[in-house]
Amino acid sequence: MCIIKLVMPKISQKGQHMPSSPIRKLVPFAEAAEKRGTTVFYLNIGQPDIKTPQLALDAVRIHSLETIAYTRSEGSEDYRKKIANYYEKNDIHVNHNDIIVTTGGSEALLFAFGTVMDEGDEIIIPEPFYANYNGFSTASGVKVVPVISKIEDNFALPPIQEFENLITSKTRAILICNPGNPTGYLYSEAEIKTLAEIVKKHDLFLIADEVYREFVYDDVKHFSVLQVTGLEEHAIVIDSVSKRYSMCGARIGYLVSKNKSFISTALKFAQARLSPPTLAQIASEAALETPQSYFDEVKAEYMQRRNTLMKELETIPGVKVAKPNGAFYCIVELPVKNADDFAQWLLEKFEFNNQTVMVAPAAGFYSTPGVGLNQIRIAYVLHEQSLITAVNILKEALKVYKD
Amino acid sequence: MCIIKLVMPKISQKGQHMPSSPIRKLVPFAEAAEKRGTTVFYLNIGQPDIKTPQLALDAVRIHSLETIAYTRSEGSEDYRKKIANYYEKNDIHVNHNDIIVTTGGSEALLFAFGTVMDEGDEIIIPEPFYANYNGFSTASGVKVVPVISKIEDNFALPPIQEFENLITSKTRAILICNPGNPTGYLYSEAEIKTLAEIVKKHDLFLIADEVYREFVYDDVKHFSVLQVTGLEEHAIVIDSVSKRYSMCGARIGYLVSKNKSFISTALKFAQARLSPPTLAQIASEAALETPQSYFDEVKAEYMQRRNTLMKELETIPGVKVAKPNGAFYCIVELPVKNADDFAQWLLEKFEFNNQTVMVAPAAGFYSTPGVGLNQIRIAYVLHEQSLITAVNILKEALKVYKD
Repeated sequence: MCIIKLVMPKISQKGQHMPSSPIRKLVPFAEAAEKRGTTVFYLNIGQPDIKTPQLALDAVRIHSLETIAYTRSEGSEDYRKKIANYYEKNDIHVNHNDIIVTTGGSEALLFAFGTVMDEGDEIIIPEPFYANYNGFSTASGVKVVPVISKIEDNFALPPIQEFENLITSKTRAILICNPGNPTGYLYSEAEIKTLAEIVKKHDLFLIADEVYREFVYDDVKHFSVLQVTGLEEHAIVIDSVSKRYSMCGARIGYLVSKNKSFISTALKFAQARLSPPTLAQIASEAALETPQSYFDEVKAEYMQRRNTLMKELETIPGVKVAKPNGAFYCIVELPVKNADDFAQWLLEKFEFNNQTVMVAPAAGFYSTPGVGLNQIRIAYVLHEQSLITAVNILKEALKVYKD
Repeated sequence: MCIIKLVMPKISQKGQHMPSSPIRKLVPFAEAAEKRGTTVFYLNIGQPDIKTPQLALDAVRIHSLETIAYTRSEGSEDYRKKIANYYEKNDIHVNHNDIIVTTGGSEALLFAFGTVMDEGDEIIIPEPFYANYNGFSTASGVKVVPVISKIEDNFALPPIQEFENLITSKTRAILICNPGNPTGYLYSEAEIKTLAEIVKKHDLFLIADEVYREFVYDDVKHFSVLQVTGLEEHAIVIDSVSKRYSMCGARIGYLVSKNKSFISTALKFAQARLSPPTLAQIASEAALETPQSYFDEVKAEYMQRRNTLMKELETIPGVKVAKPNGAFYCIVELPVKNADDFAQWLLEKFEFNNQTVMVAPAAGFYSTPGVGLNQIRIAYVLHEQSLITAVNILKEALKVYKD
């Protein structure tokens, strides 16, 4: 008998624990459906079909670079001054030195996590939440402590006591997404101020992912954590041009805080990776000149889509939906046991007039096991008529689906 | 007496330990010198003055995007196939599925570190090394264990026994930069094979930062870790378009490995951040068509600069320099006690014909305290005539400088 030594270096524990995309495993089924000739309506994706403002596209076309060089690690002073000016117009008073330009909101999150948390530290996040918060937490060795918000309450913040029950000596921050992906929930000024009181009382950071700030409906106003007086040392904003100007692929975001120690520390993370992407900064700087009419049109379009989606979903028996006030997502509860199985079945076994839909099972947006199993996230990034068709397919599917 | 509670949330230990850029503290002195009207020759920077290939610049100018959308997290299949083809031409046999497109070599390093190491794990790196390896290690909670290579040996790898003496149960990888920043050292095929034996014996990964692969002089051939037979499960290459096509600001790099577990795990880190920058991928994909004549010219230019720099440096009494065979840096030992003080003095107190130079003190490229204190790194990214002038300034400065 001989013993063969398996020479194979080890993958890290962290790497093994990194979550897979909750949608990824469905992609082969969608591809197979398309190969069979079935039209798939994609209700699962966060990539808007809205066009990027022409002036941003043009700025890249007319670039005069001879060398695509590094920019400053924090982004150019000119660009950051313009960003500060954007915030000023939105009643948020920050200086360009309070801003670090990042490679998307993703990198802003990564820098924020690294700057405020060590291995084993805890961050409280109302769930359901943006699935990649799990990924950044795992990559940073940080533990997500979820506080459950419920579809019955339209995903409003749970009572203050529920947060305080979760705070331990390891807690370093509370993270919210406002308006929320995947819920579309918009936190009220009162809710933000409640959170402000909690973080001040317990010396925590309040990290607000406000990338959907412009997508707020029904004449409600967005209230930023940067607008709370006295919260200067605690408030951190994650921002991005991705959805605002429909340029997700640019990969430009910002980290904003008036806490000097926070910014100077985050800058060290930024320096290690040298520079945010130069071409994308050219497009993004130009995008800041986008006229209000662009946002008005986009907002009107999304509001119309949302209203249509809500109306259509209400016609399906047994379906529960939390009406979103912002962003372009909503969580829908279905009369099924397991939305994961249902989503796969839709792509693998079902068709209606040779069409089907792809949805995102919502369990991936929760970190509490077993919660949200019968929920899906719908992104209303399709044209109104396609949404109507897609929801009708869902309705027909639910008529015949057996758990 | 009253006790005031200082309400201030805490910065992480990791954030506090993140190294600052070794050059950054000199920047204000350089700015002040320029304000006084002194011309500063920048020998400290890794931003080449070489032009980006025209076809890469043009590809962006003629883009036909209406929406700057996400690409796949690993980069488009088309682009990765072209990258695989680039490697094939360089006698490196990889498939497009062995490649993940990253946001610069920086992100490739971050994903590699996260995929193979947990908090407290160790990575052995021959020093002096690229200063930001310290940053990525700190950000990843990983301990750098340096193995010293010496200017006397032209920075050749130390004997195999010195590596083995450093390997512990926590060691997960050896990282090399080939050709090296800041040494310009090119590892021989024999040295790479020695490293291969060590990592196979101890089940470690061999991570090779090969971003300077094209910058190899004197008709010596670059030998990649991906060319070692039997090292498939251990070899990881970090690559980047930054220097190759003089497009540092694009922020496009690659992670390459034939280890399937490694790639599928690194992909989860890539998915969490969604997509590498789209516009930069357009430029980078086009750059792959750059004709050989571009590289021949660039290489001839750098070789000429290197030769001139070496010749000029030899005329300074007490200066020791390791002749680089690749990249565009060299380490220079000066007859001073502390190169950090000297670099500041050059900018603050010295001028010759109203000119001075900025150099990078080399201590930041070592992790062993107290080593390299009398060394600087020179990047020969200036035109030949400027290099001659700059070295002459250095010579004049050393005549009058008193420690």
